[in-house]
Formats: sequence, C-alpha cells, structure tokens
Amino acid sequence: MITFSVFKKSKKSNARIGVIKTPHGEVETPAFVGVATQATIKTLTSAEALQTGLQALIANTYHLHIRPGEDTVKKNGGLHTFMQWDRPLMTDSGGFQVFSLGFGKDYGTGKILKKRSDAVIQKGAQPQKVKITEDGVEFRSYVDGSKLFLGPKESMRIQEKLGADIILAFDECTSPLADYEYNKHAMEKTHRWADMCIKAKQSKQALYGIVQGGKHKDLRQESAHFMASREFQGYGIGGEFGDNKSIMQKMLRWTLAELQENKPRHLLGIGHLSDIELVIKEGVDTFDCIAPTHYARHGYAFISKGQGTRKKEKAAEFEKLDLNNKKYKNDLGSLDKNCECFVCNTYTRSYLHHLIRAYEITPLRLLTFHNLHFFNEYVDNIKNRIKKGDV
Amino acid sequence: MITFSVFKKSKKSNARIGVIKTPHGEVETPAFVGVATQATIKTLTSAEALQTGLQALIANTYHLHIRPGEDTVKKNGGLHTFMQWDRPLMTDSGGFQVFSLGFGKDYGTGKILKKRSDAVIQKGAQPQKVKITEDGVEFRSYVDGSKLFLGPKESMRIQEKLGADIILAFDECTSPLADYEYNKHAMEKTHRWADMCIKAKQSKQALYGIVQGGKHKDLRQESAHFMASREFQGYGIGGEFGDNKSIMQKMLRWTLAELQENKPRHLLGIGHLSDIELVIKEGVDTFDCIAPTHYARHGYAFISKGQGTRKKEKAAEFEKLDLNNKKYKNDLGSLDKNCECFVCNTYTRSYLHHLIRAYEITPLRLLTFHNLHFFNEYVDNIKNRIKKGDV
Repeated sequence: MITFSVFKKSKKSNARIGVIKTPHGEVETPAFVGVATQATIKTLTSAEALQTGLQALIANTYHLHIRPGEDTVKKNGGLHTFMQWDRPLMTDSGGFQVFSLGFGKDYGTGKILKKRSDAVIQKGAQPQKVKITEDGVEFRSYVDGSKLFLGPKESMRIQEKLGADIILAFDECTSPLADYEYNKHAMEKTHRWADMCIKAKQSKQALYGIVQGGKHKDLRQESAHFMASREFQGYGIGGEFGDNKSIMQKMLRWTLAELQENKPRHLLGIGHLSDIELVIKEGVDTFDCIAPTHYARHGYAFISKGQGTRKKEKAAEFEKLDLNNKKYKNDLGSLDKNCECFVCNTYTRSYLHHLIRAYEITPLRLLTFHNLHFFNEYVDNIKNRIKKGDV
Repeated sequence: MITFSVFKKSKKSNARIGVIKTPHGEVETPAFVGVATQATIKTLTSAEALQTGLQALIANTYHLHIRPGEDTVKKNGGLHTFMQWDRPLMTDSGGFQVFSLGFGKDYGTGKILKKRSDAVIQKGAQPQKVKITEDGVEFRSYVDGSKLFLGPKESMRIQEKLGADIILAFDECTSPLADYEYNKHAMEKTHRWADMCIKAKQSKQALYGIVQGGKHKDLRQESAHFMASREFQGYGIGGEFGDNKSIMQKMLRWTLAELQENKPRHLLGIGHLSDIELVIKEGVDTFDCIAPTHYARHGYAFISKGQGTRKKEKAAEFEKLDLNNKKYKNDLGSLDKNCECFVCNTYTRSYLHHLIRAYEITPLRLLTFHNLHFFNEYVDNIKNRIKKGDV
C-alpha cells in the first residue's frame, strides 16, 4: 500500500507539494519518474539511476510479460530485486501497447501520425496487428510470434508477480485519430476493465485507475468522475492531450478537477522539459517520459540556457545541445557549467563529441546520466519555487 | 621517462615480477594492458577501468590522428586529461594499421585469413588500400576519404602531442601470408624507421622499439638483436606468432633471449586467457588484447571453471559463458561465484540474460567490467604463483 500527503498547495496555480510513501521508500512530489521499460533505465545501472536523483521508476508489464516473463522476474524475487532498485517502482498495465502496437503501428505515432491525419478511426474498427475485444486484447509476441492475451485480469496477475509498489489498471489507450464514438466506447470499456482490475487484484500493491476519454471534455470529465468514485489509491492520466500545450492544459484542468485531491495523479508518457512546469501547475504529481534517455542515445544533452548567467532560482530555462555537431570538436567547456553531475564535473564537450563521432557506447551513458540529472534538477527547481510561492 | 625494476625471476621459467614507474604511476608486472583505441575502454569510463584493476591502457595513434586529431587531444591537455585517466598510458604507433588496413583488408585477419591462405605476399607487393613506401605509409581517412601519410617522424610527432607515458616506434606489421623475403625487407625497413623514431623524438616520453620478423627464427633474432642495440626504454613484440601456441612459445623464446633483460617487454595484441600464462612464462611483462571487452559486447563472460570448487591458489582455469543462451533464463546464480566484482555481487545471470536478449546497452557494460576484472585477477593469480615459486 501507499499513502499520500499534500504539504502545500500553491496559491498561484493548482501545483502542490506532497509525498507518496511506499513499501520501498518515499517519492517527494512533484517528481519525474524514470522509464525502465525492460527493467533497466537504458544504458544505466539502477545505482546510477538513483544518483541522477530519480526517486521512482516505471517498468512495462507488456514487455516484461513477453520477455523474460513475470515468472522469471518472480523467481528472481520480484522486479525490485531483479533490477536491484530498492526504491519506489511502478508498472504500467500494457494498455499503452494496445495503442502503440495496434493503431499506432497502422497509422504511426507522434510526428509520423500527422502526415496521415486524414484517417479517422471509427467505432468498431480494429487495428491490423492486435484484436481488441470486450475482454481484452489479443497480441502476437514480437519475440516468437506466439499468441498473447492481455485483459484486466491478466494484467493484474502479471503485475502482481512483477511486484511493483504501484500498479496500473488495464485500459485502452486510444489513437489521436479515433473519433468521438470510438473514444466513448473505449472509455466505457476502460471503466468496466477498471472495476474488473479492482476485483481481480489480490495483493497489497497500490492500484491506480487510468482516466481516458481522448480530447473530449465531457468524456474526460466522465472518466475522471468514474475513477474518483472507485477505490483506487491514485490515478493515471492516459491517452492524448490534443495538438498543443494550451489544449493539454485545459484538458488537465477539466480532468484533475474531478479527481480526489488527496490521491496522487500520474501523467503517463508526458514530460518534455517544455511540458513539465505546465503539468505541475495543473496539479500533476508524477509523470514519466523517455525524452532525457532517448535524446541522450542520439547525442543530445539538455543544458541550462545562457550558460553562466542563469540564476538557479529563476524560472528554469534550457536548451538542447547536439553533441554530434562539429562545433564542439575543440570546446573545452563542460556540458553545462551550472550542473554538478559527475559528467559535467569530469569531461569536456570536446571529449564527449569525439566519443559520439567515434560511435562509442560510453557517451550514451554519460549523456543519459546528465540528462536525467538535469530533468530531476529541473523539477526540483520548480518544487522550490512552489515552496516559495512563486509558481 | 620510465624506470623498470625486476624484483624476482622465476627459477622454473623465464617469468619475472617487476615494476614500471612512469610519470603517471606504476605498473606492477606482469600486467594486462586495457585497449582504449578511441581514448576509452569501450562501454566504460576511465574511473571504472581503474576499478577493474587495470593499471595501464593503450590508445591508438592512427585512430586518434584521424579523429579527433592530436591537436584536439593536445588542446584538452593531452590524452590523460582528455580521457580522465591519470595512470600509465601507452599509444601504439599506427604500425598495426599498416597491416590491418592494408593486406589485412585484402586477405582478412584471424580466422577469415585461414580460408584464403593459398595467397602468398611477395616482396614488392602492395595492398589495395594503403601504399607502403620506404618513408612510410599512405592511407585514406575512413572519416572523410582524405589522404594521410604516416611514417616514423609523423608517428612520433602525433604521439608526442597525444602525450602518453610510453610511445611505440613506427613499424610495418606484416601479414601471416607474407613470405620470407617480404618479411626480411619489411623488417629492415622497420629497423631504419626505428632509428628515425629515436632521432625524431623530442619529448621525454619512453620509446619502445618494435621487434618484427614474422615467423622466421633468424629474422626475429636479428630484429631483437637490433632493437637491443639501440637506446630504447623498452620493447614491443609485434607481428604474427605462427599457427599454434607451441610455435608462439618458441618464437618468444628466440626473441626475448636477444633483448636487454632490464627493460620491459610488451607483447602487442596477444592476451587471450589461454595465452597469458604461456607468454608470462616466456618473460613478457605487459600485453594487451581486445578479448575481454570484445566478447563482453557479444554477451560472453569469462568465469572460473568448476564454480565453487576452484581453489584460487591453484592454476587458474576458466570457461566462457554465453549469456545469450536460454539456459540462463532462470539461473539465479551470479556470473562467477568466485568473483568479487560489483557485477557478480549485484546481479543474477537471469537478469543479465534478460538484458542481453532485450538488446539493452547496460549489460554490455556489466560484462565488460566483469571480464576485465576477471582478466586482471587471472594475471594477479599468476603473479602470486610466480612469487611463491610455482610458475
């Protein structure tokens, strides 16, 4: 089980300072949650993940079910022991993969999606590679092609074996191309599945209900209202959030207003630096995003803007450094003058640039470490400003 | 400059215990030297390289000349500062690349070579991609296709800018397919180049002369005799060593007998576990090999044989574990019960197997760390047995 306490609410926004207590320690919120899909933060060890300032990680039920399988994880003593992370841990339910491996495969996700946005997914439509039924979702394993079925009961059973502190109800995450009727139908199914998850769960793990409803105000409100009426220990907010930050802000406002204030809210898969202050101001407590780790593996570092002039207590500003760029060949400065992580304390940009151009593996780790450290400092900065009454 | 002292000579073999003192600390010999071609041990940081027990690293003149260039390294304060390795450091001369990018490209190296061993490289022959002249070697950069020329003077100038403690004379490393006349001619050129290196060197770095001569006893003896007659601070033994360990042993015996006893001998590119005791027994002080790092990146771990029964003081035995293999899926044991590295102290084989099967980057680091630790322990074990008079 977990407990959640809110210590301070902002007077300027819906931001709040709190703490989630879990059997594996505390998460001071707001907090960035590190993405450990395959039971590791890509390129790092769990000990290093901790050193970056991460307080909690989120692993993936779908991927760990396929490989190595929840039984193997359980034999290892559960996910905490398996990956040697003795801190708060979440698992998502597999609901996102209903989208990413379903309509996401057919129409693309993110930027690719926009190119094909003339498609409309109507009620009753089925993606090519997965089959969504009233009971759950039929997948094929990408490892051996075998048939897999994931529904609320299966997701609970798997997540119980994985043994994270916080588990998520199984939901259908819809595509941005789905129309109103599709979203309404999927949401209603997600609500039925939420009740089935509550009923199926036998462990003492904390269970979060997932709010869906696409970009539709009435559906989001209905979904949040539904989740708030059930015995969940917290809430996940899933699905899409419209085409721009202003729409995302409104949607979060509609949604979070319906949820119980004394329970933590996790925003699923959102957390680019440009989103973080906005979502915290709307009252989101935790959120996860692959941006810091993904960009690191492509040679990008997030650093504070206007190196040397930025004041830490002011609104945090950032820029993205492309270390592939030749202009860093002889740059003897550290990645970020304002950063005190070991990477910035140890190496020149010149060395990091060299390693990236030489296709070495070492710099992928170094940038991952720095970026996560930067994200966590970035959130800490906002937290401090909430404490001071500035946010 | 360096100094070298021999503390103990074995009565059972030509093995010896010594210490090389450099401006960046000491190397207790015999010692495995870590390969840091591009100014990093692949996947690791220099701090971790030190934790594995490595005492010295060897970086590559040819590769660092091409990218990032010795001027960039010098601007960073030299190779030690660039890569944050404050310990003994060697650079090889680029002579190996005369082979690996020359006849090595045309006829293959290692196992591939054997398939085409009907070819004979005769005196006067030229490889397709590099041109070997009396003054040096013309290459093309693999980065931008530009022409490069590397000869004894150029190699010295580059190695001086890189600033390693020990630098190597520029030589021609011959292909195993080269005939006697080719080897004789190349060796004589290598000798002329050795004198040119001594003359060209302006720094206080220690310079090693490289013994060549292919698999021919008279050439090896002549080459060793030549190098011993010159003012070198130590010796590298390069080129090929025949088709089996018995021939390698004989060749080392012929060669090392001609060298000055009070100077360190580095065996270039040899150091599989099965070679190590043999070469140490012949009087080799240091040696480098990519085996521990290369195999790690392919999912292999070197571990002590007969887990749990091996006695550390007995002749070290080992086996190679293929962690890609499904049989480790539920293996809750550590990589090596007899190993005290952090990887063996932290993770199960089951977890490492999972990460490898999931194509994660993290396990490549973990296996690299363990393998280097294992190699260093392996050498330490032999060192202790020499001290006890058992080797």
